[in-house]
Amino acid sequence: MTYCVGLTVREGLVMIADTRTNAGIDNIATFRKLHVLEEPGERIMVLCTSGNLSVSQAVLNHVQEGIENTDTQVVETLRTAPSMFKAAQLIGRAIRLVYETDGKSLEEHSGRFDVAILFGGQIKGGKMRLFMIYSAGNFIEVTVDTPYLQIGEHKYGKPILDRAVNFNTDIQDALKIGLISMDSTMRSNLGVGMPIDIVVARRDAFRAEIKHRIEPGEPYFHDLRERWSAALRAAHIAIPRPPYAVADKNRPGEGVDI
Amino acid sequence: MTYCVGLTVREGLVMIADTRTNAGIDNIATFRKLHVLEEPGERIMVLCTSGNLSVSQAVLNHVQEGIENTDTQVVETLRTAPSMFKAAQLIGRAIRLVYETDGKSLEEHSGRFDVAILFGGQIKGGKMRLFMIYSAGNFIEVTVDTPYLQIGEHKYGKPILDRAVNFNTDIQDALKIGLISMDSTMRSNLGVGMPIDIVVARRDAFRAEIKHRIEPGEPYFHDLRERWSAALRAAHIAIPRPPYAVADKNRPGEGVDI
Repeated sequence: MTYCVGLTVREGLVMIADTRTNAGIDNIATFRKLHVLEEPGERIMVLCTSGNLSVSQAVLNHVQEGIENTDTQVVETLRTAPSMFKAAQLIGRAIRLVYETDGKSLEEHSGRFDVAILFGGQIKGGKMRLFMIYSAGNFIEVTVDTPYLQIGEHKYGKPILDRAVNFNTDIQDALKIGLISMDSTMRSNLGVGMPIDIVVARRDAFRAEIKHRIEPGEPYFHDLRERWSAALRAAHIAIPRPPYAVADKNRPGEGVDI
Repeated sequence: MTYCVGLTVREGLVMIADTRTNAGIDNIATFRKLHVLEEPGERIMVLCTSGNLSVSQAVLNHVQEGIENTDTQVVETLRTAPSMFKAAQLIGRAIRLVYETDGKSLEEHSGRFDVAILFGGQIKGGKMRLFMIYSAGNFIEVTVDTPYLQIGEHKYGKPILDRAVNFNTDIQDALKIGLISMDSTMRSNLGVGMPIDIVVARRDAFRAEIKHRIEPGEPYFHDLRERWSAALRAAHIAIPRPPYAVADKNRPGEGVDI
Protein backbone atom coordinates (compact mmCIF):
# COMPACT_ATOMS: atom_id res chain seq x y z
CA MET A 1 0.00 0.00 0.00
CA THR A 2 0.99 3.64 -0.36
CA TYR A 3 -0.15 7.03 0.77
CA CYS A 4 0.98 10.21 -0.97
CA VAL A 5 -0.54 13.66 -0.71
CA GLY A 6 0.25 16.82 -2.62
CA LEU A 7 -0.99 20.27 -1.61
CA THR A 8 -0.74 23.57 -3.43
CA VAL A 9 -1.33 26.69 -1.38
CA ARG A 10 -0.80 30.34 -2.23
CA GLU A 11 2.84 30.16 -1.19
CA GLY A 12 3.75 26.96 -2.97
CA LEU A 13 3.80 23.19 -3.10
CA VAL A 14 3.99 20.46 -0.44
CA MET A 15 4.42 16.79 -1.33
CA ILE A 16 4.56 13.90 1.13
CA ALA A 17 4.97 10.16 0.54
CA ASP A 18 5.42 7.09 2.65
CA THR A 19 7.95 4.41 1.66
CA ARG A 20 6.32 1.08 2.47
CA THR A 21 5.76 -1.50 -0.23
CA ASN A 22 4.31 -4.93 0.11
CA ALA A 23 4.19 -7.85 -2.24
CA GLY A 24 1.78 -9.77 -0.04
CA ILE A 25 1.57 -9.00 3.64
CA ASP A 26 4.59 -11.18 4.39
CA ASN A 27 6.89 -9.27 2.04
CA ILE A 28 7.26 -5.73 3.31
CA ALA A 29 10.05 -3.42 2.16
CA THR A 30 11.06 0.23 1.99
CA PHE A 31 11.16 1.88 -1.43
CA ARG A 32 11.37 5.55 -2.20
CA LYS A 33 8.17 6.77 -3.85
CA LEU A 34 8.93 10.50 -3.85
CA HIS A 35 11.35 11.63 -6.53
CA VAL A 36 12.71 15.10 -7.15
CA LEU A 37 14.19 16.66 -10.26
CA GLU A 38 15.74 19.98 -9.38
CA GLU A 39 17.63 22.48 -11.49
CA PRO A 40 17.88 25.33 -8.97
CA GLY A 41 16.60 28.57 -10.38
CA GLU A 42 15.27 26.81 -13.50
CA ARG A 43 12.87 24.01 -12.65
CA ILE A 44 11.68 21.76 -9.87
CA MET A 45 9.58 18.67 -10.44
CA VAL A 46 8.34 16.20 -7.82
CA LEU A 47 6.79 12.83 -8.56
CA CYS A 48 5.06 10.60 -6.00
CA THR A 49 4.06 7.16 -7.23
CA SER A 50 1.61 4.51 -6.11
CA GLY A 51 0.52 1.18 -7.55
CA ASN A 52 2.58 -1.64 -8.97
CA LEU A 53 6.22 -0.83 -8.19
CA SER A 54 7.58 -2.36 -11.40
CA VAL A 55 5.23 -0.14 -13.40
CA SER A 56 6.05 3.08 -11.54
CA GLN A 57 9.79 2.41 -11.69
CA ALA A 58 9.57 1.71 -15.44
CA VAL A 59 7.70 5.00 -15.91
CA LEU A 60 10.43 6.85 -14.02
CA ASN A 61 13.09 5.24 -16.20
CA HIS A 62 11.27 6.29 -19.37
CA VAL A 63 10.86 9.94 -18.37
CA GLN A 64 14.50 10.05 -17.29
CA GLU A 65 16.02 8.28 -20.33
CA GLY A 66 13.59 9.94 -22.71
CA ILE A 67 10.79 8.97 -25.06
CA GLU A 68 10.99 9.73 -28.76
CA ASN A 69 8.29 12.07 -29.99
CA THR A 70 6.97 10.24 -33.05
CA ASP A 71 6.14 13.54 -34.80
CA THR A 72 9.46 15.29 -34.36
CA GLN A 73 11.83 12.35 -33.69
CA VAL A 74 13.14 14.37 -30.74
CA VAL A 75 13.79 12.40 -27.55
CA GLU A 76 11.96 14.13 -24.70
CA THR A 77 12.70 13.89 -20.98
CA LEU A 78 11.45 15.70 -17.90
CA ARG A 79 14.57 17.91 -18.15
CA THR A 80 13.70 19.03 -21.67
CA ALA A 81 9.92 19.41 -21.23
CA PRO A 82 9.02 23.02 -22.03
CA SER A 83 6.10 23.21 -19.59
CA MET A 84 4.57 21.31 -16.68
CA PHE A 85 1.60 20.41 -18.89
CA LYS A 86 3.92 18.92 -21.53
CA ALA A 87 5.84 17.14 -18.76
CA ALA A 88 2.61 15.63 -17.42
CA GLN A 89 1.74 14.49 -20.94
CA LEU A 90 5.20 12.91 -21.20
CA ILE A 91 4.57 10.95 -17.98
CA GLY A 92 1.20 9.89 -19.40
CA ARG A 93 2.91 8.64 -22.57
CA ALA A 94 5.46 6.77 -20.43
CA ILE A 95 2.61 5.04 -18.59
CA ARG A 96 1.01 4.00 -21.91
CA LEU A 97 4.37 2.75 -23.14
CA VAL A 98 4.78 0.55 -20.05
CA TYR A 99 1.22 -0.67 -20.54
CA GLU A 100 2.04 -1.68 -24.12
CA THR A 101 5.17 -3.49 -22.96
CA ASP A 102 4.02 -5.09 -19.70
CA GLY A 103 0.25 -4.67 -19.37
CA LYS A 104 -0.86 -7.87 -21.05
CA SER A 105 1.71 -10.10 -19.31
CA LEU A 106 0.95 -8.52 -15.94
CA GLU A 107 -2.75 -9.23 -16.32
CA GLU A 108 -2.05 -12.80 -17.50
CA HIS A 109 -0.10 -13.38 -14.29
CA SER A 110 -2.92 -12.09 -12.10
CA GLY A 111 -1.21 -8.78 -11.54
CA ARG A 112 -2.94 -5.50 -12.17
CA PHE A 113 -1.62 -2.70 -14.32
CA ASP A 114 -2.11 -0.19 -11.59
CA VAL A 115 -0.26 3.08 -11.25
CA ALA A 116 -1.08 6.62 -10.13
CA ILE A 117 1.33 9.52 -9.98
CA LEU A 118 1.22 12.89 -8.29
CA PHE A 119 3.29 15.29 -10.34
CA GLY A 120 3.96 18.79 -9.03
CA GLY A 121 6.40 21.57 -9.70
CA GLN A 122 7.25 24.65 -11.68
CA ILE A 123 9.37 25.53 -14.71
CA LYS A 124 10.78 29.06 -15.10
CA GLY A 125 8.33 31.12 -17.13
CA GLY A 126 5.38 28.94 -16.12
CA LYS A 127 3.05 28.54 -13.19
CA MET A 128 3.31 26.06 -10.34
CA ARG A 129 1.15 23.04 -11.15
CA LEU A 130 0.07 19.83 -9.42
CA PHE A 131 -1.38 16.94 -11.40
CA MET A 132 -2.67 13.46 -10.65
CA ILE A 133 -1.89 11.09 -13.53
CA TYR A 134 -3.92 7.89 -13.85
CA SER A 135 -3.17 4.40 -15.21
CA ALA A 136 -4.64 5.42 -18.58
CA GLY A 137 -2.13 8.26 -18.86
CA ASN A 138 -4.81 10.94 -18.49
CA PHE A 139 -4.57 13.46 -15.68
CA ILE A 140 -6.37 16.07 -13.61
CA GLU A 141 -5.05 19.19 -11.93
CA VAL A 142 -5.58 20.57 -8.46
CA THR A 143 -7.77 23.69 -8.20
CA VAL A 144 -8.06 26.58 -5.77
CA ASP A 145 -11.32 25.03 -4.50
CA THR A 146 -9.72 21.68 -3.66
CA PRO A 147 -6.03 22.41 -3.22
CA TYR A 148 -4.89 18.84 -2.56
CA LEU A 149 -4.64 15.52 -4.38
CA GLN A 150 -4.06 12.08 -2.89
CA ILE A 151 -3.03 8.69 -4.26
CA GLY A 152 -3.02 5.26 -2.65
CA GLU A 153 -4.78 4.69 0.68
CA HIS A 154 -6.47 8.08 0.68
CA LYS A 155 -9.55 7.77 2.88
CA TYR A 156 -8.14 7.71 6.41
CA GLY A 157 -6.19 10.91 5.83
CA LYS A 158 -8.90 12.83 3.99
CA PRO A 159 -11.08 14.15 6.86
CA ILE A 160 -8.31 16.38 8.27
CA LEU A 161 -7.56 17.76 4.79
CA ASP A 162 -11.25 18.46 4.17
CA ARG A 163 -11.46 20.41 7.39
CA ALA A 164 -8.13 22.16 7.69
CA VAL A 165 -6.64 23.04 4.30
CA ASN A 166 -7.54 25.76 1.87
CA PHE A 167 -5.61 27.70 -0.73
CA ASN A 168 -4.70 30.43 1.77
CA THR A 169 -3.28 28.04 4.36
CA ASP A 170 0.30 28.92 5.32
CA ILE A 171 2.74 26.58 3.57
CA GLN A 172 4.30 25.38 6.85
CA ASP A 173 0.80 24.64 8.16
CA ALA A 174 0.01 22.78 4.94
CA LEU A 175 3.07 20.59 5.58
CA LYS A 176 1.98 20.06 9.18
CA ILE A 177 -1.58 19.13 8.17
CA GLY A 178 -0.21 16.82 5.48
CA LEU A 179 1.84 15.07 8.15
CA ILE A 180 -1.24 14.72 10.38
CA SER A 181 -3.04 13.20 7.38
CA MET A 182 -0.11 10.77 6.93
CA ASP A 183 -0.21 9.90 10.65
CA SER A 184 -3.94 9.09 10.50
CA THR A 185 -3.31 6.84 7.51
CA MET A 186 -0.37 5.01 9.07
CA ARG A 187 -2.35 4.48 12.23
CA SER A 188 -5.25 2.79 10.42
CA ASN A 189 -3.35 0.92 7.67
CA LEU A 190 -0.15 -0.97 8.46
CA GLY A 191 0.59 -1.05 4.72
CA VAL A 192 1.54 2.63 4.95
CA GLY A 193 4.71 3.26 6.95
CA MET A 194 7.84 5.19 7.87
CA PRO A 195 10.14 6.67 6.77
CA ILE A 196 8.27 9.58 5.18
CA ASP A 197 9.68 11.73 2.40
CA ILE A 198 8.68 15.38 2.18
CA VAL A 199 9.33 18.20 -0.24
CA VAL A 200 8.30 21.83 0.07
CA ALA A 201 8.85 24.28 -2.80
CA ARG A 202 7.80 27.93 -2.80
CA ARG A 203 6.34 29.49 -5.92
CA ASP A 204 8.90 31.10 -8.22
CA ALA A 205 11.84 29.73 -6.24
CA PHE A 206 12.45 26.81 -8.64
CA ARG A 207 14.12 24.87 -5.86
CA ALA A 208 13.15 22.77 -2.85
CA GLU A 209 13.02 24.75 0.36
CA ILE A 210 12.61 21.53 2.31
CA LYS A 211 13.66 18.11 1.11
CA HIS A 212 13.71 15.73 3.97
CA ARG A 213 13.24 12.12 5.01
CA ILE A 214 11.50 11.66 8.36
CA GLU A 215 12.94 8.54 9.97
CA PRO A 216 11.16 6.48 12.65
CA GLY A 217 11.60 8.10 16.06
CA GLU A 218 12.39 11.54 14.63
CA PRO A 219 11.50 13.96 17.46
CA TYR A 220 9.27 16.48 15.66
CA PHE A 221 7.09 13.89 13.96
CA HIS A 222 6.91 11.81 17.13
CA ASP A 223 5.79 14.92 19.02
CA LEU A 224 3.22 15.77 16.31
CA ARG A 225 1.71 12.28 16.61
CA GLU A 226 1.56 12.49 20.40
CA ARG A 227 0.06 15.98 20.38
CA TRP A 228 -2.51 15.06 17.77
CA SER A 229 -3.59 11.96 19.69
CA ALA A 230 -3.80 13.92 22.94
CA ALA A 231 -5.76 16.71 21.24
CA LEU A 232 -8.26 14.26 19.74
CA ARG A 233 -8.77 12.64 23.13
CA ALA A 234 -9.23 16.04 24.75
CA ALA A 235 -11.57 17.11 21.93
CA HIS A 236 -13.99 14.22 22.31
CA ILE A 237 -13.85 14.37 26.08
CA ALA A 238 -14.78 18.08 25.95
CA ILE A 239 -17.94 17.38 23.94
CA PRO A 240 -20.98 16.97 26.23
CA ARG A 241 -22.59 13.54 26.43
CA PRO A 242 -25.65 12.87 24.26
CA PRO A 243 -29.04 13.88 25.69
CA TYR A 244 -31.00 11.13 23.94
CA ALA A 245 -33.44 8.89 25.74
CA VAL A 246 -35.96 6.20 24.89
CA ALA A 247 -37.85 7.57 21.93
CA ASP A 248 -41.47 8.43 21.56
CA LYS A 249 -42.92 5.53 19.61
CA ASN A 250 -45.28 7.84 17.77
CA ARG A 251 -42.49 9.65 15.95
CA PRO A 252 -41.75 8.39 12.44
CA GLY A 253 -38.73 6.12 12.23
CA GLU A 254 -38.98 5.13 15.88
CA GLY A 255 -40.15 2.07 17.66
CA VAL A 256 -40.03 -1.66 17.27
CA ASP A 257 -39.96 -2.42 13.60
CA ILE A 258 -39.17 -6.07 13.07
CA MET B 1 -23.49 4.15 0.25
CA THR B 2 -23.93 3.41 3.93
CA TYR B 3 -22.09 3.77 7.18
CA CYS B 4 -22.99 1.75 10.26
CA VAL B 5 -20.93 1.20 13.38
CA GLY B 6 -21.55 -1.05 16.35
CA LEU B 7 -19.64 -0.81 19.63
CA THR B 8 -19.69 -3.10 22.64
CA VAL B 9 -18.26 -1.70 25.84
CA ARG B 10 -18.36 -3.02 29.38
CA GLU B 11 -21.74 -1.41 30.00
CA GLY B 12 -23.44 -2.48 26.81
CA LEU B 13 -24.09 -1.98 23.14
CA VAL B 14 -24.23 1.08 20.87
CA MET B 15 -25.37 0.87 17.25
CA ILE B 16 -25.50 3.76 14.79
CA ALA B 17 -26.60 3.85 11.14
CA ASP B 18 -27.14 6.48 8.51
CA THR B 19 -30.20 6.35 6.23
CA ARG B 20 -29.01 7.43 2.78
CA THR B 21 -29.35 5.13 -0.16
CA ASN B 22 -28.42 5.79 -3.73
CA ALA B 23 -29.22 3.94 -6.92
CA GLY B 24 -26.78 6.03 -8.95
CA ILE B 25 -25.78 9.47 -7.75
CA ASP B 26 -28.93 11.03 -9.19
CA ASN B 27 -31.27 8.79 -7.24
CA ILE B 28 -30.85 9.50 -3.54
CA ALA B 29 -33.37 8.43 -0.93
CA THR B 30 -33.82 7.84 2.78
CA PHE B 31 -34.27 4.26 3.96
CA ARG B 32 -34.05 2.95 7.45
CA LYS B 33 -31.04 0.63 7.84
CA LEU B 34 -31.20 0.16 11.61
CA HIS B 35 -33.87 -2.27 12.81
CA VAL B 36 -34.76 -3.21 16.35
CA LEU B 37 -36.51 -6.25 17.71
CA GLU B 38 -37.34 -5.68 21.35
CA GLU B 39 -39.19 -7.83 23.86
CA PRO B 40 -38.52 -5.81 27.00
CA GLY B 41 -37.03 -7.92 29.76
CA GLU B 42 -36.59 -10.88 27.38
CA ARG B 43 -34.54 -9.98 24.30
CA ILE B 44 -33.21 -7.10 22.28
CA MET B 45 -31.76 -7.48 18.81
CA VAL B 46 -30.48 -4.74 16.54
CA LEU B 47 -29.63 -5.14 12.87
CA CYS B 48 -27.81 -2.58 10.72
CA THR B 49 -27.60 -3.37 7.03
CA SER B 50 -25.45 -2.23 4.13
CA GLY B 51 -25.16 -3.24 0.50
CA ASN B 52 -27.87 -3.86 -2.06
CA LEU B 53 -31.14 -2.66 -0.49
CA SER B 54 -33.28 -5.31 -2.17
CA VAL B 55 -31.02 -7.99 -0.71
CA SER B 56 -30.96 -6.57 2.83
CA GLN B 57 -34.73 -6.02 2.85
CA ALA B 58 -35.31 -9.59 1.63
CA VAL B 59 -33.07 -10.89 4.43
CA LEU B 60 -35.09 -8.91 6.98
CA ASN B 61 -38.31 -10.34 5.61
CA HIS B 62 -36.97 -13.88 5.87
CA VAL B 63 -35.82 -13.58 9.50
CA GLN B 64 -39.14 -11.96 10.39
CA GLU B 65 -41.45 -14.41 8.55
CA GLY B 66 -39.24 -17.35 9.41
CA ILE B 67 -37.14 -19.94 7.64
CA GLU B 68 -37.92 -23.62 7.91
CA ASN B 69 -35.18 -25.64 9.56
CA THR B 70 -34.75 -28.55 7.13
CA ASP B 71 -33.75 -30.92 9.95
CA THR B 72 -36.62 -30.22 12.33
CA GLN B 73 -39.27 -28.71 9.98
CA VAL B 74 -39.65 -25.95 12.58
CA VAL B 75 -39.99 -22.42 11.19
CA GLU B 76 -37.40 -20.25 12.92
CA THR B 77 -37.48 -16.46 13.32
CA LEU B 78 -35.40 -13.96 15.27
CA ARG B 79 -38.14 -14.07 17.94
CA THR B 80 -37.77 -17.82 18.41
CA ALA B 81 -33.96 -18.04 18.13
CA PRO B 82 -32.68 -19.56 21.39
CA SER B 83 -29.34 -17.69 21.38
CA MET B 84 -27.63 -14.78 19.64
CA PHE B 85 -25.31 -17.28 17.94
CA LYS B 86 -28.28 -19.22 16.55
CA ALA B 87 -29.90 -15.94 15.52
CA ALA B 88 -26.74 -14.90 13.64
CA GLN B 89 -26.74 -18.28 11.92
CA LEU B 90 -30.38 -17.71 10.96
CA ILE B 91 -29.47 -14.37 9.37
CA GLY B 92 -26.63 -16.10 7.53
CA ARG B 93 -29.09 -18.71 6.23
CA ALA B 94 -31.45 -15.92 5.13
CA ILE B 95 -28.60 -14.30 3.16
CA ARG B 96 -27.84 -17.63 1.44
CA LEU B 97 -31.52 -18.08 0.66
CA VAL B 98 -31.68 -14.65 -1.00
CA TYR B 99 -28.50 -15.50 -2.91
CA GLU B 100 -30.14 -18.70 -4.21
CA THR B 101 -33.24 -16.75 -5.25
CA ASP B 102 -31.77 -13.51 -6.59
CA GLY B 103 -27.99 -13.85 -6.82
CA LYS B 104 -27.73 -15.14 -10.38
CA SER B 105 -30.24 -12.68 -11.83
CA LEU B 106 -28.64 -9.77 -10.00
CA GLU B 107 -25.23 -10.61 -11.41
CA GLU B 108 -26.68 -11.05 -14.91
CA HIS B 109 -28.07 -7.52 -14.70
CA SER B 110 -24.72 -6.08 -13.66
CA GLY B 111 -25.78 -5.80 -10.05
CA ARG B 112 -23.70 -7.21 -7.25
CA PHE B 113 -24.92 -9.56 -4.57
CA ASP B 114 -23.57 -7.38 -1.85
CA VAL B 115 -24.79 -7.30 1.73
CA ALA B 116 -23.24 -6.90 5.17
CA ILE B 117 -25.08 -6.86 8.46
CA LEU B 118 -24.15 -5.77 11.95
CA PHE B 119 -26.15 -7.83 14.39
CA GLY B 120 -26.03 -7.02 18.09
CA GLY B 121 -28.09 -7.73 21.15
CA GLN B 122 -28.79 -10.03 24.04
CA ILE B 123 -31.28 -12.78 24.89
CA LYS B 124 -32.18 -13.51 28.52
CA GLY B 125 -29.85 -16.22 29.81
CA GLY B 126 -27.14 -15.35 27.31
CA LYS B 127 -24.39 -12.80 26.85
CA MET B 128 -24.51 -9.58 24.88
CA ARG B 129 -23.02 -10.22 21.43
CA LEU B 130 -22.16 -8.19 18.35
CA PHE B 131 -21.57 -9.88 15.00
CA MET B 132 -20.72 -8.79 11.48
CA ILE B 133 -22.37 -11.08 8.93
CA TYR B 134 -20.95 -11.20 5.39
CA SER B 135 -22.48 -11.83 1.95
CA ALA B 136 -21.52 -15.50 2.21
CA GLY B 137 -23.55 -15.84 5.41
CA ASN B 138 -20.46 -16.34 7.58
CA PHE B 139 -19.79 -13.98 10.45
CA ILE B 140 -17.27 -12.67 12.95
CA GLU B 141 -17.74 -11.33 16.45
CA VAL B 142 -16.37 -8.26 18.16
CA THR B 143 -13.73 -8.86 20.84
CA VAL B 144 -12.55 -7.01 23.92
CA ASP B 145 -9.40 -6.03 21.99
CA THR B 146 -11.32 -4.42 19.14
CA PRO B 147 -14.70 -3.53 20.57
CA TYR B 148 -16.24 -2.13 17.39
CA LEU B 149 -17.34 -3.32 13.95
CA GLN B 150 -18.17 -1.22 10.90
CA ILE B 151 -19.95 -1.85 7.61
CA GLY B 152 -20.21 0.28 4.48
CA GLU B 153 -17.99 3.32 4.04
CA HIS B 154 -15.81 2.51 7.03
CA LYS B 155 -12.48 4.22 6.45
CA TYR B 156 -13.20 7.89 7.12
CA GLY B 157 -14.68 7.12 10.51
CA LYS B 158 -12.11 4.58 11.66
CA PRO B 159 -9.25 6.82 12.92
CA ILE B 160 -11.31 8.26 15.79
CA LEU B 161 -12.49 4.77 16.81
CA ASP B 162 -8.91 3.47 16.73
CA ARG B 163 -7.80 6.26 19.02
CA ALA B 164 -10.70 6.79 21.38
CA VAL B 165 -12.64 3.59 22.06
CA ASN B 166 -11.79 0.63 24.23
CA PHE B 167 -13.82 -1.90 26.13
CA ASN B 168 -13.82 0.24 29.28
CA THR B 169 -15.11 3.38 27.56
CA ASP B 170 -18.27 4.73 29.20
CA ILE B 171 -21.33 3.78 27.13
CA GLN B 172 -22.41 7.42 26.68
CA ASP B 173 -18.90 8.26 25.49
CA ALA B 174 -19.02 5.31 23.12
CA LEU B 175 -22.20 6.77 21.62
CA LYS B 176 -20.56 10.19 21.38
CA ILE B 177 -17.44 8.79 19.69
CA GLY B 178 -19.62 6.76 17.33
CA LEU B 179 -21.41 9.98 16.36
CA ILE B 180 -18.06 11.71 15.74
CA SER B 181 -17.10 8.76 13.54
CA MET B 182 -20.41 9.17 11.66
CA ASP B 183 -19.78 12.91 11.28
CA SER B 184 -16.31 12.33 9.78
CA THR B 185 -17.82 9.86 7.30
CA MET B 186 -20.69 12.14 6.27
CA ARG B 187 -18.28 15.00 5.79
CA SER B 188 -16.05 13.05 3.38
CA ASN B 189 -18.68 10.98 1.54
CA LEU B 190 -21.93 12.55 0.40
CA GLY B 191 -23.35 9.04 -0.04
CA VAL B 192 -23.67 8.82 3.76
CA GLY B 193 -26.26 11.18 5.22
CA MET B 194 -28.83 12.25 7.79
CA PRO B 195 -31.04 11.31 9.51
CA ILE B 196 -29.06 9.00 11.79
CA ASP B 197 -30.59 6.17 13.79
CA ILE B 198 -29.09 5.20 17.13
CA VAL B 199 -29.73 2.48 19.67
CA VAL B 200 -28.10 2.03 23.06
CA ALA B 201 -28.78 -1.07 25.16
CA ARG B 202 -27.19 -1.83 28.52
CA ARG B 203 -26.11 -5.33 29.36
CA ASP B 204 -28.76 -7.44 31.10
CA ALA B 205 -31.48 -4.83 30.55
CA PHE B 206 -32.97 -6.63 27.51
CA ARG B 207 -34.38 -3.39 26.22
CA ALA B 208 -33.21 -0.23 24.46
CA GLU B 209 -32.19 2.57 26.80
CA ILE B 210 -31.92 4.94 23.85
CA LYS B 211 -33.70 4.48 20.55
CA HIS B 212 -33.60 7.68 18.62
CA ARG B 213 -33.52 9.20 15.16
CA ILE B 214 -31.29 12.26 14.84
CA GLU B 215 -32.87 14.55 12.26
CA PRO B 216 -30.98 17.23 10.30
CA GLY B 217 -30.54 20.36 12.40
CA GLU B 218 -31.02 18.51 15.70
CA PRO B 219 -29.27 20.75 18.27
CA TYR B 220 -27.03 18.24 20.08
CA PHE B 221 -25.63 16.65 16.94
CA HIS B 222 -25.21 20.05 15.29
CA ASP B 223 -23.28 21.21 18.35
CA LEU B 224 -21.15 18.03 18.36
CA ARG B 225 -20.18 18.64 14.73
CA GLU B 226 -19.30 22.27 15.41
CA ARG B 227 -17.30 21.46 18.52
CA TRP B 228 -15.43 18.66 16.81
CA SER B 229 -14.52 20.85 13.83
CA ALA B 230 -13.40 23.66 16.13
CA ALA B 231 -11.38 21.25 18.26
CA LEU B 232 -9.62 19.79 15.22
CA ARG B 233 -8.75 23.26 13.99
CA ALA B 234 -7.45 24.21 17.43
CA ALA B 235 -5.54 20.92 17.65
CA HIS B 236 -3.60 21.34 14.46
CA ILE B 237 -2.99 25.04 15.12
CA ALA B 238 -1.54 24.16 18.53
CA ILE B 239 1.04 21.81 17.01
CA PRO B 240 4.34 23.63 16.34
CA ARG B 241 5.40 24.10 12.73
CA PRO B 242 7.85 21.62 11.24
CA PRO B 243 11.56 22.34 11.79
CA TYR B 244 12.72 20.75 8.52
CA ALA B 245 15.06 22.49 6.13
CA VAL B 246 16.91 21.71 2.91
CA ALA B 247 18.43 18.34 3.48
CA ASP B 248 22.03 17.27 3.54
CA LYS B 249 22.57 15.61 0.19
CA ASN B 250 24.93 13.10 1.74
CA ARG B 251 22.21 11.48 3.82
CA PRO B 252 20.62 8.37 2.31
CA GLY B 253 17.30 9.01 0.66
CA GLU B 254 18.02 12.68 0.11
CA GLY B 255 18.98 14.75 -2.86
CA VAL B 256 18.23 14.94 -6.53
CA ASP B 257 17.39 11.49 -7.71
CA ILE B 258 15.97 11.65 -11.19
